[in-house]
Amino acid sequence: MSREQRARIDAMLRRSGGDGPRSVEELRAGFRALMAGMIVPPGIRTRDEVLGDRRAVRVEPDDDPKAGTILYFHGGGNVFGSPETALCLTANLVVRTGFRAFSLDYRLAPEHPFPAAIDDALSAYRALLDGGEDPSAIAFAGDSAGGGLTVTACLAARDAGLPLPAAIMAFSPGLDHTRSGESMRTKEGIDPIFTRAAVRYTGSLYLAGRDPHHPLLSPAVLADLSGFPPMLLQVGTNELLLDDSTRLAARARDAGVDVILDVTADAPHVFQAYVGVLDEAGQALDRAAFFLGQHVRAVETARTPAP
Amino acid sequence: MSREQRARIDAMLRRSGGDGPRSVEELRAGFRALMAGMIVPPGIRTRDEVLGDRRAVRVEPDDDPKAGTILYFHGGGNVFGSPETALCLTANLVVRTGFRAFSLDYRLAPEHPFPAAIDDALSAYRALLDGGEDPSAIAFAGDSAGGGLTVTACLAARDAGLPLPAAIMAFSPGLDHTRSGESMRTKEGIDPIFTRAAVRYTGSLYLAGRDPHHPLLSPAVLADLSGFPPMLLQVGTNELLLDDSTRLAARARDAGVDVILDVTADAPHVFQAYVGVLDEAGQALDRAAFFLGQHVRAVETARTPAP
Repeated sequence: MSREQRARIDAMLRRSGGDGPRSVEELRAGFRALMAGMIVPPGIRTRDEVLGDRRAVRVEPDDDPKAGTILYFHGGGNVFGSPETALCLTANLVVRTGFRAFSLDYRLAPEHPFPAAIDDALSAYRALLDGGEDPSAIAFAGDSAGGGLTVTACLAARDAGLPLPAAIMAFSPGLDHTRSGESMRTKEGIDPIFTRAAVRYTGSLYLAGRDPHHPLLSPAVLADLSGFPPMLLQVGTNELLLDDSTRLAARARDAGVDVILDVTADAPHVFQAYVGVLDEAGQALDRAAFFLGQHVRAVETARTPAP
Repeated sequence: MSREQRARIDAMLRRSGGDGPRSVEELRAGFRALMAGMIVPPGIRTRDEVLGDRRAVRVEPDDDPKAGTILYFHGGGNVFGSPETALCLTANLVVRTGFRAFSLDYRLAPEHPFPAAIDDALSAYRALLDGGEDPSAIAFAGDSAGGGLTVTACLAARDAGLPLPAAIMAFSPGLDHTRSGESMRTKEGIDPIFTRAAVRYTGSLYLAGRDPHHPLLSPAVLADLSGFPPMLLQVGTNELLLDDSTRLAARARDAGVDVILDVTADAPHVFQAYVGVLDEAGQALDRAAFFLGQHVRAVETARTPAP
């Protein structure tokens, strides 16, 4: 990672930063402004649809898409963000895989705290299944709080008795509202985006007084991942949330789940969004797409013994 | 992973097994017999050469190879194995990457205990550099004890002031002669290949009385990995050596090294060798080749900032 590339990103992050607490509306506007600077690749088209009870942006290749659906959950601490703010990430996965994606506009806190987002994610997945999609053709993907939703929606789907998706892929997922990871302490000041106070503030809006010791709020600490599909977790080392991923990966290993923990040194939270500015971002997206290509629609073949 | 695929592998492992201690010659013959059953893909040619003071088998694609060299270290507990026993793995990497490989016939214990293997690996790397190879075009790869050599040879190269290779890729590396990983206990009986006693026996031949508390003997516990190139560690959950990889990955993260920890559930030691019998083996080799393709000869480009 070159010094110049890092300097560009630091400058971009500083422009979006600001001292002291901000209102929910200020957070939402600031995030919109930050993410509007991200580069959306050519070669895709978007269309608003409805999945379950919520709007979802269908993102698909201009050319004929391959069989395969990514159900995407945007980031934003469960308080801000939208399919539009994550379009850079969703579109880059679509362009690289050839699959279509649905990026869900799930409900946000504080208006709609836990478990509204998970309910919406589960409804969207159920709508895909009810529409005839084979679960082996569906992957959950997401970033930050949306990366957390890839896991909690899968837990909810399992608890509901639904077949599980073919794969889970998360960029810097938020997986622990107990905030008990070592990196919450060791990366304070190193993380150029988050402070502990900021993470706790948005978290408190989502929790709305709930005890965070619940598998759907802190899966990195409490979830039983038995039966989960293959997972890819990508994270940077300059993140308060680093150990959300390292601990979920350990839980996955213990539960007998295939799991790839893909760590990029000195990279910030959801560094994949800096594709075009940071070489490591494009390389990580390439690995994510390769992983999705290995598992989406490949499951039935993979389970068939060689003749 | 299907039941039938696993049953095939279990049968293959049982055929090579045997109760009680065996002589070094029996171990070597048994391993040759086991690995002779592995499927070497078509499309490669091999030739004996010399790298440093040791024989190395050049493995290259029948078609024109791409620029890029894999320096491969075979497995066998530092006591048995050869470039020939690892040919399945080396050839599969060559076929999938298009790079050429040199698979080193490094010296083995008990005739040549620690640090003979590392000395040979370093001499081979130095010979490549002296021959005009750019380090950005070289990756270290290996399995089991040879996976350990990818790390210890890189430590030795750094200590010798040499430029480091572009990437390190290891299948089920052995990285801890202190045998202090939790999996040494928790996977006893689950690992279908190794017992603690067997691992300690071959280890003792390599140690020849040395204290294992040394970075070149137990890098997962003691090595400072600062400055290391990107690393990919692939390992199964049915392995005594699982935590050699999980702990090295943690050390790499702490040292600011890009590291991918790629864990396949219910897979045995160096399961990639069962390519053609086990679907997960081919998929893991595909990911390994993708990783090598991202880093070998890509380093200089990746370090150049975008215009």
